[in-house]
Amino acid sequence: MPGEDGALAEGLFAPITTTDELAALTSGRAWVRAMLDAETALALAEERVGILPAGTAQVIASAARSIDLDPGEIGRRARLGGNPAIPLAEELRARVEGPAAEWVHWGATSQDIVDTAAMLVVARATERIDADLRAVCGACAELSERHRRTLMVGRTLLQHALPITFGLKTAGWLVAAAEVHRGLTSVRSRLPVQLGGAAGTLASLGDRGPEVVQVMADELGLVTPAMPWHTNRVVMAEVAAVLGTLAGVGAKVARDVALMMQTEVGEAFEPAAPGRGGSSTLPHKRNPVGSSAVLTAHRRAGALVAVMLDAMDDEHERGVGGWQSEWETLTSLLRLAGGVAAQLREVLSGLEVDPEAMATNLTLTAGVLLSERVVLALAPAMGRAAATGAVQEAAARASRGTRSFADELIGDPAIAQHLDASDLDRLLDPRGYLGATDAFIDRALRAYRGE
Amino acid sequence: MPGEDGALAEGLFAPITTTDELAALTSGRAWVRAMLDAETALALAEERVGILPAGTAQVIASAARSIDLDPGEIGRRARLGGNPAIPLAEELRARVEGPAAEWVHWGATSQDIVDTAAMLVVARATERIDADLRAVCGACAELSERHRRTLMVGRTLLQHALPITFGLKTAGWLVAAAEVHRGLTSVRSRLPVQLGGAAGTLASLGDRGPEVVQVMADELGLVTPAMPWHTNRVVMAEVAAVLGTLAGVGAKVARDVALMMQTEVGEAFEPAAPGRGGSSTLPHKRNPVGSSAVLTAHRRAGALVAVMLDAMDDEHERGVGGWQSEWETLTSLLRLAGGVAAQLREVLSGLEVDPEAMATNLTLTAGVLLSERVVLALAPAMGRAAATGAVQEAAARASRGTRSFADELIGDPAIAQHLDASDLDRLLDPRGYLGATDAFIDRALRAYRGE
Amino acid sequence: MPGEDGALAEGLFAPITTTDELAALTSGRAWVRAMLDAETALALAEERVGILPAGTAQVIASAARSIDLDPGEIGRRARLGGNPAIPLAEELRARVEGPAAEWVHWGATSQDIVDTAAMLVVARATERIDADLRAVCGACAELSERHRRTLMVGRTLLQHALPITFGLKTAGWLVAAAEVHRGLTSVRSRLPVQLGGAAGTLASLGDRGPEVVQVMADELGLVTPAMPWHTNRVVMAEVAAVLGTLAGVGAKVARDVALMMQTEVGEAFEPAAPGRGGSSTLPHKRNPVGSSAVLTAHRRAGALVAVMLDAMDDEHERGVGGWQSEWETLTSLLRLAGGVAAQLREVLSGLEVDPEAMATNLTLTAGVLLSERVVLALAPAMGRAAATGAVQEAAARASRGTRSFADELIGDPAIAQHLDASDLDRLLDPRGYLGATDAFIDRALRAYRGE
Amino acid sequence: MPGEDGALAEGLFAPITTTDELAALTSGRAWVRAMLDAETALALAEERVGILPAGTAQVIASAARSIDLDPGEIGRRARLGGNPAIPLAEELRARVEGPAAEWVHWGATSQDIVDTAAMLVVARATERIDADLRAVCGACAELSERHRRTLMVGRTLLQHALPITFGLKTAGWLVAAAEVHRGLTSVRSRLPVQLGGAAGTLASLGDRGPEVVQVMADELGLVTPAMPWHTNRVVMAEVAAVLGTLAGVGAKVARDVALMMQTEVGEAFEPAAPGRGGSSTLPHKRNPVGSSAVLTAHRRAGALVAVMLDAMDDEHERGVGGWQSEWETLTSLLRLAGGVAAQLREVLSGLEVDPEAMATNLTLTAGVLLSERVVLALAPAMGRAAATGAVQEAAARASRGTRSFADELIGDPAIAQHLDASDLDRLLDPRGYLGATDAFIDRALRAYRGE
Repeated sequence: MPGEDGALAEGLFAPITTTDELAALTSGRAWVRAMLDAETALALAEERVGILPAGTAQVIASAARSIDLDPGEIGRRARLGGNPAIPLAEELRARVEGPAAEWVHWGATSQDIVDTAAMLVVARATERIDADLRAVCGACAELSERHRRTLMVGRTLLQHALPITFGLKTAGWLVAAAEVHRGLTSVRSRLPVQLGGAAGTLASLGDRGPEVVQVMADELGLVTPAMPWHTNRVVMAEVAAVLGTLAGVGAKVARDVALMMQTEVGEAFEPAAPGRGGSSTLPHKRNPVGSSAVLTAHRRAGALVAVMLDAMDDEHERGVGGWQSEWETLTSLLRLAGGVAAQLREVLSGLEVDPEAMATNLTLTAGVLLSERVVLALAPAMGRAAATGAVQEAAARASRGTRSFADELIGDPAIAQHLDASDLDRLLDPRGYLGATDAFIDRALRAYRGE
Repeated sequence: MPGEDGALAEGLFAPITTTDELAALTSGRAWVRAMLDAETALALAEERVGILPAGTAQVIASAARSIDLDPGEIGRRARLGGNPAIPLAEELRARVEGPAAEWVHWGATSQDIVDTAAMLVVARATERIDADLRAVCGACAELSERHRRTLMVGRTLLQHALPITFGLKTAGWLVAAAEVHRGLTSVRSRLPVQLGGAAGTLASLGDRGPEVVQVMADELGLVTPAMPWHTNRVVMAEVAAVLGTLAGVGAKVARDVALMMQTEVGEAFEPAAPGRGGSSTLPHKRNPVGSSAVLTAHRRAGALVAVMLDAMDDEHERGVGGWQSEWETLTSLLRLAGGVAAQLREVLSGLEVDPEAMATNLTLTAGVLLSERVVLALAPAMGRAAATGAVQEAAARASRGTRSFADELIGDPAIAQHLDASDLDRLLDPRGYLGATDAFIDRALRAYRGE
Repeated sequence: MPGEDGALAEGLFAPITTTDELAALTSGRAWVRAMLDAETALALAEERVGILPAGTAQVIASAARSIDLDPGEIGRRARLGGNPAIPLAEELRARVEGPAAEWVHWGATSQDIVDTAAMLVVARATERIDADLRAVCGACAELSERHRRTLMVGRTLLQHALPITFGLKTAGWLVAAAEVHRGLTSVRSRLPVQLGGAAGTLASLGDRGPEVVQVMADELGLVTPAMPWHTNRVVMAEVAAVLGTLAGVGAKVARDVALMMQTEVGEAFEPAAPGRGGSSTLPHKRNPVGSSAVLTAHRRAGALVAVMLDAMDDEHERGVGGWQSEWETLTSLLRLAGGVAAQLREVLSGLEVDPEAMATNLTLTAGVLLSERVVLALAPAMGRAAATGAVQEAAARASRGTRSFADELIGDPAIAQHLDASDLDRLLDPRGYLGATDAFIDRALRAYRGE
Repeated sequence: MPGEDGALAEGLFAPITTTDELAALTSGRAWVRAMLDAETALALAEERVGILPAGTAQVIASAARSIDLDPGEIGRRARLGGNPAIPLAEELRARVEGPAAEWVHWGATSQDIVDTAAMLVVARATERIDADLRAVCGACAELSERHRRTLMVGRTLLQHALPITFGLKTAGWLVAAAEVHRGLTSVRSRLPVQLGGAAGTLASLGDRGPEVVQVMADELGLVTPAMPWHTNRVVMAEVAAVLGTLAGVGAKVARDVALMMQTEVGEAFEPAAPGRGGSSTLPHKRNPVGSSAVLTAHRRAGALVAVMLDAMDDEHERGVGGWQSEWETLTSLLRLAGGVAAQLREVLSGLEVDPEAMATNLTLTAGVLLSERVVLALAPAMGRAAATGAVQEAAARASRGTRSFADELIGDPAIAQHLDASDLDRLLDPRGYLGATDAFIDRALRAYRGE
């Protein structure tokens, strides 16, 4: 379609791990727009400090607004010079009428435009991610309140361990999401404009360089850096790291949801929607497609962060291969992290929880799950080692035979000496062995609410 | 544009590290085509063994040929089920008229289609890569012959070390390229069809499953696997590894070329083309844009291989997140490796070599470069330690003062006792200290030519 | 302290993911031994071709055998020159008495010694890995035969999908293990000696370099390369890739075992041993510690392969940072892959399988698992879409209400028109819906046995 | 062997990329010490809140202080349970006399001890790294002041671009180092204690869990988390990311230094020391061994960060393989980042700068380097495109022929119309085309000094 945003035209696979909105915010078209915004702000700043003739910036801005470039065409022309800012500036210059054309891209190097555009793309895409992440936090908080006392089994190394509540599990998700949100907010407040000229001196702007940088930054809502950062990529590393961490936070939730959705477990389910989670052949299946998308994104994100960190060793004033490896990598990271935040929001907002199944699973081990508690109750009298041994033997006998764990415990004289049936009833009731669950949920909620 | 192949519409950055041809061979459209080829071959095989009514495959094949799907649309619909084969089969079924529609995708699971398509995409894209890689080998062989005796300095840790010839350097490139070509050929001969049905048993095909697999494989020019490989991803790992290795082989060449193109070194240059390697601001520059593209690709490829290896731990009969992380990763690897092969071919076919500059650089250390040879000549008489000491001191005096290295050597009585001026003339002539250079070049060429 | 093998002294964590034997085969001491073997073979080869005086190699070999160096001490002294071959050669020279000392390390560069040692360490460590991997294949083959008809549920995306047999699952493991074994065998046959001298010309050996290389290779059981490969790291990439792939193959098995060991699933268990899999607090637990170790190794291995691939862009004749990043990375990969093979061998040799639990889990969905089969049986008469709809609705009603899936099916007149109760009995019996399971197991076993 | 610190016994290669001090701070012994500190603080906190009998903590602390465990022995025993805290607690319990033994490890799970120890190891190791990083900043600041006006060529894509000063280059290093120092300081202030018990509820501590956590945190100088973070690994990701970023910052400096040390460039050199940078065969070489070590560390660090991010998807309340993959990875990251900081400190504190060589290299292009300036001077009169064309042609003629660039410029009537010889003298003087160099250095220094 003429003028169609190709963001997803290519995208046979991409939509599975990102949203249409994030795809659009990070598309070739969005990058071109951001590069044109950088050129426009540059001209404006240079006019304001008196380098460009009055009225020039307006003409350039107008041309920048009006043109609609095919990113693929710019990309192909970028092969000659190795980056897309070169053909873009040529194109912009060709569209500007009159003497203003001479002033397009004045004093800038191509990396000034690409890096500034990168910061704008990051700022714009993470604004959306930030909103989804806040909603994720909200959904976790809501689940934590609602399921504060919904008993379920706590599992370690995929084995039943001790009782917890579902609210405690979601409080853990909440803390993680809130922490990465703090990190994202922090890095979002430090995104700098880039302007250094060919070798980082802004030589062609005489002594007015720093002033131009500041006006340009203000114009674009970016931070004024101490100096050009063409080969100081700390901020890029920080952006990448926080996006990768977000994917990790999401994967933890998705892993739990996918495991809880197992046919044998059946404790929680992604929200149903017509056709969602269906199989091409098995009519009865309900697949964890949202969790799968998040796990997919996470599996790819860590390696992309590594690429961004590897890219930091740029040569001299501008590098050969390091900087250039950031572009698609950063774009992918934004899409994947954005997809994670959006999927989590959807999954958690509509999560179907089955407290009955949770309660049933809690009984699968017929009380053996509370062995620790029985051991602790016996330890003062029997000694911990002896208590552990006796309880383990009772559990083993129960698993082999037909008598319940409680009966096996009471049947051991060494134990019966210290505990009677009513003690055991109490000790084997999971509701009484939740420790600080409530307090931790409160603390997580307070931390989230900034109290 | 209606019907436009979106391969590069998105691609603001992608063209820098890949070719139009590789982009097309791995585009969403190419994947859809390969998935339709898989569906068609499946129907054909099932008809041939008698599962499908006669004539059905022809109807399905005809529908598959005629439809032109927007990959982005398929991709968006893929969100519901988590992979693109589900909406594609729906779409194909909708386009097939009459009772044949029931038989579309018969007995297959979506992963059968996606994995088979992946193998087809790999086969088709690597056919192109193979051709470029062979041309790279040819160009290296040609350079090795031509510059067999073109003296230059050998550098280790970026320091002058000993004389070599440029032909020896390119012979090293040749051996690496030939080795990775062998690896690529090997893995290309083992690409298997995928067909297992929902859980790898081909239950819905009764006892005719294996026969269908074989006919389908033959039809597509793929290998018949021992059994379905839904969660055995060894071949995927091998494909990824050889593509990543190819990027590494390319990066070694590109690193050397970029270093030789340094203003201070100036020994070899990427072929010139109008506008190629230009800067947006500096009219005098000639940037190593081809090498930069190769280095960029290499910086990204290693991490993508890691993603493919990480993806191998798929759960049970089909995984949640591992398999799914392969699609875009494999696509990127093919594009990057293909870009590397094509760039290398272009750079090496037209490489401009400056033997004079090489000769000049060889003299920069005024013979100190041949210290080792002088030490070896002195060692039998003086002992190695004493010889090394004396030569190092002569070199140090030469670097501080105005006398040449040769004069400083001759000026040391301990040395002069064993060597005279004509000995030194001979010893300090780099042409005489090339050791096995010629033999190694011959061996590399013979190995390449399969002798 | 003298004589102590530090391999595991450091190793608070390492033993969890490797074996004592692999740790020893890749220890600092093993590397030193391999470097001394390289120096010895070099001297021997040089003596044999007439460069060293007769008897010299014997004196050097004897000194090399007798010395016992602390790898940590060599390592600290390696800081000055950037690699351990420099202090090692110094140390060896100091231990050799008489004129032979002058001939130690003759003509070699430090990378010749380190690279040759690397190949020896790889050869020796992978000999052990190869043995374990063959045992893994054997154990898988044995399980496949024994459990050829042990029914269990096939799971996709962690959901019940269709019936399979446990033998089919293990046949899948077998094929993967056999494939990576083939890859390992292939790369093991191509490990080359390294000898090039300071810049890859063997200049100091005059025209006898190639002959020396060949004798040295034969002496060490390594391959003679076409030419020095100081900055051609294809073989290193191939070694790394196959080790990473092995980790992936192991992780697939470990993932399945850990999931089957889940308290709710309980189908298979790692072999029990006193104390194995215990928890520090929970007496009843039996953790998948072997699987956990394999999964841990796999999570680390992929990234290490990426480091090896990234290292391929060495500068000129010997690089600055690339080559050097291989040493610890390769060592870790050997340890992790070796740990994977050994753990798999142990887990699979003693795997406890619970066919009853498998059978029970198969009934959890009360026949809904065989929906596909019912759909396929109805499709010819009803059409696939209608059949799918009717079966899905019956499944949904069964899951909501109290009637069984079979009853719900029969209760639908549209279905009852085509199927009666005895048809359904047959259709819902998983034993009859295994498709090519048997044939695939046979093919896997035949492929493994090389038939 | 008793008493021996194995930190570097194993370390044939490790010393090249880390310091003895960092190796010791992260050794198996240091981890064991930190785990015992965690056990001690736990007992103390539990006693203080009244769970343990008075005097118990003192007995436990005393036993913990007195025992000297071989990390390798603990590591081997860790195989049974999958982590080293289990055998460590056993060992500690065995050493505690009397009833206090029962209270060792009370209420804790093994991950509580390992995670708390990890935070202590991070805190202790990064204290050292922080000191080195501050020294790096100081050295950069000093170089920036001293070389504020030391002219050199600015290079982009390894080509001469425009004049800069060496002080500007080092100011860029300074800003990067100061930024990563800020990040390190931030994460260092957030390192939390871990205490949750078997499933994160602290059930065995009744309602006093949170109080114990806080006392324990205070005792160890760690932060009290909102709740246990057994499967919320954000802080681990943040630690890893900042260490990886530090490696990236170091690699940028090291890359520049290694390139400046090239024989053909010779502008700056790592400090000389006896034997440092020597070659095993080439007496004249001076290798960039410090830079090589930093580049090596950087090449490994990015992938290790990826492992840490990948590890975030731990299952349920404690994971199987994710958490476990952090231990050696984190240890390596601390060592590598610490090695980077220490090497940078050493290299930058003693960097030998050769302003004359810098000045000479600036003249290599005979003024063509200032083409941009000439273009800008001509642009107002000639138009930018025409000016660029004329200047490029003059540069091309100069490079082909014998006339200087200045003469070629003046020889073009179109140019001579606007510029005379004295204009060109001025325009081609690099001192006059430094733009904001001075201002940027000032801003960098002010930012570093916190003004």
